[in-house]
Amino acid sequence: MINPDLFSKISYGLYVVCSGNRFQGNGFVANTVFQVTSKPPRFAVCCNKDNYTSDFIKQYKAFSVSVLSRDVSSDLINRFGYKSGRDIDKFSGLEVMYGETEVPILKNESLAYFECALIDAFDVGTHLIFIGELLNGDVLDAESEPLTYDYYRKVKKGVAPKNAPTYVDRSLFGEKTESDQMIGLKKYECKACGYVYNEADEKIPFVDLPDDWECPICGAKKSEFEEI
Amino acid sequence: MINPDLFSKISYGLYVVCSGNRFQGNGFVANTVFQVTSKPPRFAVCCNKDNYTSDFIKQYKAFSVSVLSRDVSSDLINRFGYKSGRDIDKFSGLEVMYGETEVPILKNESLAYFECALIDAFDVGTHLIFIGELLNGDVLDAESEPLTYDYYRKVKKGVAPKNAPTYVDRSLFGEKTESDQMIGLKKYECKACGYVYNEADEKIPFVDLPDDWECPICGAKKSEFEEI
Repeated sequence: MINPDLFSKISYGLYVVCSGNRFQGNGFVANTVFQVTSKPPRFAVCCNKDNYTSDFIKQYKAFSVSVLSRDVSSDLINRFGYKSGRDIDKFSGLEVMYGETEVPILKNESLAYFECALIDAFDVGTHLIFIGELLNGDVLDAESEPLTYDYYRKVKKGVAPKNAPTYVDRSLFGEKTESDQMIGLKKYECKACGYVYNEADEKIPFVDLPDDWECPICGAKKSEFEEI
Repeated sequence: MINPDLFSKISYGLYVVCSGNRFQGNGFVANTVFQVTSKPPRFAVCCNKDNYTSDFIKQYKAFSVSVLSRDVSSDLINRFGYKSGRDIDKFSGLEVMYGETEVPILKNESLAYFECALIDAFDVGTHLIFIGELLNGDVLDAESEPLTYDYYRKVKKGVAPKNAPTYVDRSLFGEKTESDQMIGLKKYECKACGYVYNEADEKIPFVDLPDDWECPICGAKKSEFEEI
């Protein structure tokens, strides 16, 4: 028996992981960033194999991690968490510096950063775990609190995108929620980010939402939702 | 340049990871527990190679994770975090159940648990990353908050033991703190857990502490401290 509520009991931070060089590169929002050894300091980052940044990490053999501040804007989360670098230049207009490996390091809305040289990569199925050895790192803002995944979910009402290692597909566990059992109420899924608009929770039928209504997570238009 | 303050900006939970069977087994406090894939749900646990539980995970090819509650007792942390299962039976007197793989699962002071079958192990230097596929899991207490490493450090004044992946040896980074520069004040290290009593911070000379004073982290006697 697997109770899908257990997944929300695991604690994570939220980070932007970047790779590339001065001429090309990308970054994505990750929650699975963690230190794996102390001597020398090494970090692991878990990344979907389909993720564009994954290609850059393999090619440039380095990555940077920026620790997001608790007061991060939804614009930054949307840009790095719900868009693909194959479609847009995520760094456009942002404050980016380059490490000793030349990897881009995002400074906006980040309270600390570090740069790692890739030393290994492990295949765990749909994802890779990249292992990096710490080269440089600093604190940019000692006063702010780091954004945690718990805070992001509870206060900012965020959800994990479908390619995150921590995405919870509740149908996998055969769960029927109370709202599933309410007859006639429907659910609509955002095809851009996977957010589900549940009429039972929202109390407003989806069709009655104004035409300029947008996905609260990624800003996609109402027309990008489909009934599920 | 590496600013060692950056390590405290990475967010973790705190867990007890166990392995073994009904007749022998062990557990330890871990902060590096994280989900690595969603389909199927797989988790990673980072464990020091010298850790006694590491031997059991390799032998029994399974592990359990109990998510500690925020109001966990220092007794439980001390038992699972600062003692070795080579010296004591950590499960003595506690409420332990056994999973479908027979691994022990700690229920005390835990708000959720899960059981994984070992599917891989990766060498990252001093530590191993064990990858497990989720078999079972449930929430034991939906009301309590999970203990985070940040809360443990800030509110409970805890420190990482020396064999933790996130132990910070500040001397590695050549750092001189303000208190290092105060002449004549000394530091004493607990040989049991690595906690450092810094006279500059505590304002009481170590020799003036009463004889029944104990290490605030692991409860070791004053005589177990050595000047560093």
